[in-house]
Amino acid sequence: MRTALAGAETLERGMLRLFGIPESEIARTLEVLADDGVDLDRLEVTTCLRRGEIEIATVYPPAAADVYGAFVEGVRARHGELLFSEDGATIDEQVASLLAGHTVATAESCTGGLVAARLTERPGSSAYVQGGLVVYSNAAKVAQAGVPAQLIERHGAVSPEVAAALADGARAAFGADIGIGITGIAGPGGGTEEKPVGTVCLSVASADRREDRAVVLPGNRADVRDRTSTLAMHLLRRLLLAGA
Amino acid sequence: MRTALAGAETLERGMLRLFGIPESEIARTLEVLADDGVDLDRLEVTTCLRRGEIEIATVYPPAAADVYGAFVEGVRARHGELLFSEDGATIDEQVASLLAGHTVATAESCTGGLVAARLTERPGSSAYVQGGLVVYSNAAKVAQAGVPAQLIERHGAVSPEVAAALADGARAAFGADIGIGITGIAGPGGGTEEKPVGTVCLSVASADRREDRAVVLPGNRADVRDRTSTLAMHLLRRLLLAGA
Repeated sequence: MRTALAGAETLERGMLRLFGIPESEIARTLEVLADDGVDLDRLEVTTCLRRGEIEIATVYPPAAADVYGAFVEGVRARHGELLFSEDGATIDEQVASLLAGHTVATAESCTGGLVAARLTERPGSSAYVQGGLVVYSNAAKVAQAGVPAQLIERHGAVSPEVAAALADGARAAFGADIGIGITGIAGPGGGTEEKPVGTVCLSVASADRREDRAVVLPGNRADVRDRTSTLAMHLLRRLLLAGA
Repeated sequence: MRTALAGAETLERGMLRLFGIPESEIARTLEVLADDGVDLDRLEVTTCLRRGEIEIATVYPPAAADVYGAFVEGVRARHGELLFSEDGATIDEQVASLLAGHTVATAESCTGGLVAARLTERPGSSAYVQGGLVVYSNAAKVAQAGVPAQLIERHGAVSPEVAAALADGARAAFGADIGIGITGIAGPGGGTEEKPVGTVCLSVASADRREDRAVVLPGNRADVRDRTSTLAMHLLRRLLLAGA
C-alpha cells in the first residue's frame, strides 16, 4: 500500500461552476470540444447538478494540464459569463467577498427567510447583513416593506413591480446599500394559468443599479424556494460586479 | 425471490421522537428496560440523533407487538414529555397542525431567517405565518422589532430580556397571535467568558403565555443555528399545547 502511494502520481484537480444552463448543454459542450480535438480522454470529468448550478469537477495528471487548459478555454468560449467560477469558489463565497464594504437587506415572500438565512450562514456576515423582512401576507408587504397597496392591486403580489418595490423597501427599512426583493408562487397551491407554480420575480437593487429577473422555475416547493435563493445570489453577484 | 417475499412475515414499524436528552440516556433506558424484563431481543431498535432530536425507529414482527408496547411505555415513563411523538409525526408536522387557527411571526437575530424559512417550508403555511424580521444589528432590533435601546444597553443584545422583547415586537409588527424572538451567538466569533459561543436566548409569546429558554448549545455555527431553530419549534409546540 505504502509503495503504491509512493509511486502514485499526484493528480491535479479543477472545479468549474456554471449557472443558468441545463446539464444537457454541458454534455453537448464536451462533444463539441472532443470534435475540436481536445483530448478529453486524458481528463476525468464529472458533472453534477447542485442547487440549480452545474459543477464540473475534473481530475487529471500534471502532464495533461494543457488539455485541462484547453477544456476550460472551450467551456468559457461556449458559455461565457454563465461560467461564474473557475477556481472552485462557490457563489456564496464569491458574494461574501464582493459584499465587503457594502450592506444588504432582504424582503422575501415565497422564500420565507431562506435568502436571509443563506446570507447569514457565513461567519462574519453581520458585517454586511443589515437585516431582512419576511413578508408573506400582502398586508405585511405594505406595512413592513412599504410596497404601495395599489401596486399589488394593479400588478398582483407576484410581479416584477412588487419585487422591485420589495427590494427598495428592504433598503429603506434597514438603511442598507443593497436590497433584495423576492415574490413568487412556491406551490403546490396558488398557481394560475397566467402565473403558474414556480413563477418567481426577483429584484436586487442599489441606489444606482438594479438586476431584475422574472422566471418560472421547475420542481416542487422546496426546489422552487432553493433555486430562487440561488438565483438571488447570482443577481446579487452581478450587481456587485457591476459596481453595486 | 417471489416465494421468499410471499413467505416473509410483514414487519411492523414504530417511530418515537424525543427532544432534550442526550443519546446516551436512550442507551441507558434500553439497559434499564432490559433489566426490567422487556424482551428487547425481539425488537430491532435503531436510535439516531438528527437536528438535536433523537429518533428511535423500531422494526418488529406482529407477534412482538406487546413487547413494543412495553418498550414505548418504558420510554414514556422514563422520559415523560421529552417524548414528544409516538406516531412518527415530526415536530414540524405537529407545529403545523397546532397552528391551525393561529398566526405567528418571528424576529430572529442569530438564526438569520432560518426559523421563518422552516415555518414556511410547508405548503399552506401562508395560512398562519404572518411574516418575520431578521434583525442582525442592534439598530434593526430597535427600529424594526421595537426593542427598547436601553434594554439592549442594560442586558446586552443576547439576553432573555431582549429575546422577550423580540417576541413581543414580532407579534406587534405583524399583528400576529404568537411571536418568536431569538437572539444568540452562533459563532465562531462574538463569544465572551460570560456569554460563550452557542449562548442563545429564545422567547415564544402569545398575549397570555410565554415560553422562554436560555441555553448554551454545542457545535459549530451551522449546528447552533439549526439546533436553535429546532428548540424554537419545540417552545412553539409547548405554547400551543398549553392553549397558546
